[in-house]
Amino acid sequence: MLTDLVVALDIGGTKIAGALVDGKGRLLVRVQRPTPAQEDAETVMRAVEAVLHELALSPLWGRSTAVGIGSAGPVDASAGTVSPVNVPSWRDFPLVARVCQVTGALPIQLVGDGVAMTAAEHWQGAARGHANALCMVVSTGVGGGLVLGGRLHPGPTGNAGHIGHISVDLDGDLCPCGARGCVEGIASGPNIARRALEAGWRPGSDGDSSAAAVAAAARAGDTVATASFVRAAQALAAGIAATATLVEIDIAVVGGGVAGAGDVLFTPLRFALRKYATLRFVQQLTVTPALTGANAGLVGAAAAAGLGRRGAAAIVGA
Amino acid sequence: MLTDLVVALDIGGTKIAGALVDGKGRLLVRVQRPTPAQEDAETVMRAVEAVLHELALSPLWGRSTAVGIGSAGPVDASAGTVSPVNVPSWRDFPLVARVCQVTGALPIQLVGDGVAMTAAEHWQGAARGHANALCMVVSTGVGGGLVLGGRLHPGPTGNAGHIGHISVDLDGDLCPCGARGCVEGIASGPNIARRALEAGWRPGSDGDSSAAAVAAAARAGDTVATASFVRAAQALAAGIAATATLVEIDIAVVGGGVAGAGDVLFTPLRFALRKYATLRFVQQLTVTPALTGANAGLVGAAAAAGLGRRGAAAIVGA
Repeated sequence: MLTDLVVALDIGGTKIAGALVDGKGRLLVRVQRPTPAQEDAETVMRAVEAVLHELALSPLWGRSTAVGIGSAGPVDASAGTVSPVNVPSWRDFPLVARVCQVTGALPIQLVGDGVAMTAAEHWQGAARGHANALCMVVSTGVGGGLVLGGRLHPGPTGNAGHIGHISVDLDGDLCPCGARGCVEGIASGPNIARRALEAGWRPGSDGDSSAAAVAAAARAGDTVATASFVRAAQALAAGIAATATLVEIDIAVVGGGVAGAGDVLFTPLRFALRKYATLRFVQQLTVTPALTGANAGLVGAAAAAGLGRRGAAAIVGA
Repeated sequence: MLTDLVVALDIGGTKIAGALVDGKGRLLVRVQRPTPAQEDAETVMRAVEAVLHELALSPLWGRSTAVGIGSAGPVDASAGTVSPVNVPSWRDFPLVARVCQVTGALPIQLVGDGVAMTAAEHWQGAARGHANALCMVVSTGVGGGLVLGGRLHPGPTGNAGHIGHISVDLDGDLCPCGARGCVEGIASGPNIARRALEAGWRPGSDGDSSAAAVAAAARAGDTVATASFVRAAQALAAGIAATATLVEIDIAVVGGGVAGAGDVLFTPLRFALRKYATLRFVQQLTVTPALTGANAGLVGAAAAAGLGRRGAAAIVGA
């Protein structure tokens, strides 16, 4: 029997990926283009169209029944527009309407990339079977999404779970978003590296000063590198605890490049979580690495558009 | 036509109130006892039983179809137990089972007091008609509750919306809950008064050093008193903005004694909210005083137990 497929798009500041995804979350066709992030709005859109046209060449295209789009945020699912921070020419860009011109009558679901990753983790990853979960991507930025009462909770505009821009240090450093002491400003990869460098850590002979290099140094016993991860873990813990205290979650799933640091991040994160998640109803909260990998955005966009049992529930709850 | 009534209980550290509430939220019978908060568990329970027995004397009692309980938290709605911070002898106290021994076969719904207040504001107050709202009580403590997608969101244990114990200052003062920099530790009435006193404010000839007296001094132009409210407003704004960024709300309703300060609180609160609620999807967020008064706990407990259209939805969502 031929099953329905979903056309999935994952739009970020670095790449635009597309896939035809089946009911088991398998990517039957996958294509990708670099994002011309600094170009004008039409040039960026042409890259999206090129991805869609390439997918449409597949004989499987005709089995598509819906389109799921996960985009770098902020998005506005109610208006069908996106304003990705890293794509300056797209401000309130009518992405849903423009995709519709290619995909025709298929229903289209737009969510933020953090919500998409959450849909993937809830469908096939570490949040599977959890009725109330926070899933996060800690990378160049810090994003996230929520599952509440067994359903994806994208919120009215598709941006819910934006944990990177909650303040955990109300007198802290100014964030590019305009607030102070945001989780992202303490816990993102670039900020982990910046803090280590400011405190005297120096990269090895390869000159790599990324958060991954800081993690490697921490693993080798460098105390300055370790301290930078401990501080990031503290901010993440405060943010995760705040989320649990506000909406009651029983698991926090952390993915993204910074999560690749493994125990260098997760050991101090679990320690700090016990300090901030203090009320009785959040004391059982656990934190665990994400299981879905580089294709989480595509799988999650497909889930948000109705694939999978929980994906279908997500549409109802949207 | 005789309509159904709900037996409502509002259990706090100071008083235990009970009422028979009709479908319009009117309290047809209302009784109250002081809470023997420092006594043993059975003595406290006897005060609850006395309230119920007094209500049962009413000829209207027989029309009751459900029981709604709002209790000082933490509560555990799934276990039917309560552990109010201000009633030390009640720890995992089986309140639902004990109330059931008086009320018999009626279904019983237990929620935290912040959730109850939220149910009241959503049914009859400032959050009416809002699909996504945070309602807060700022008083001796800071509590709250959430409406998401048009429904009360009590969370699995009935504690969701506990905004008083999210950290907005991760290196801040130690809170009795064990965390640091909690909203309550900065914004509660006692902390507003403490900060003003520490900064040199002195009460008038009546010796009143409450937050209300600090508010009166601020209204009269005292800069130290004003500064203490500005700091409280900043912490509340950071917490409200975090909530909006995490779950997408379009209104925050603030009640409780500290909200009685009026513009002394709300003017700096609205100013600070613009500084912390920065992302596009939270920029329309408004903050407004609560409309339900001293009986919000009873009306809200009744709503959570099924009274009112939204109250009925709340049960489904619980």
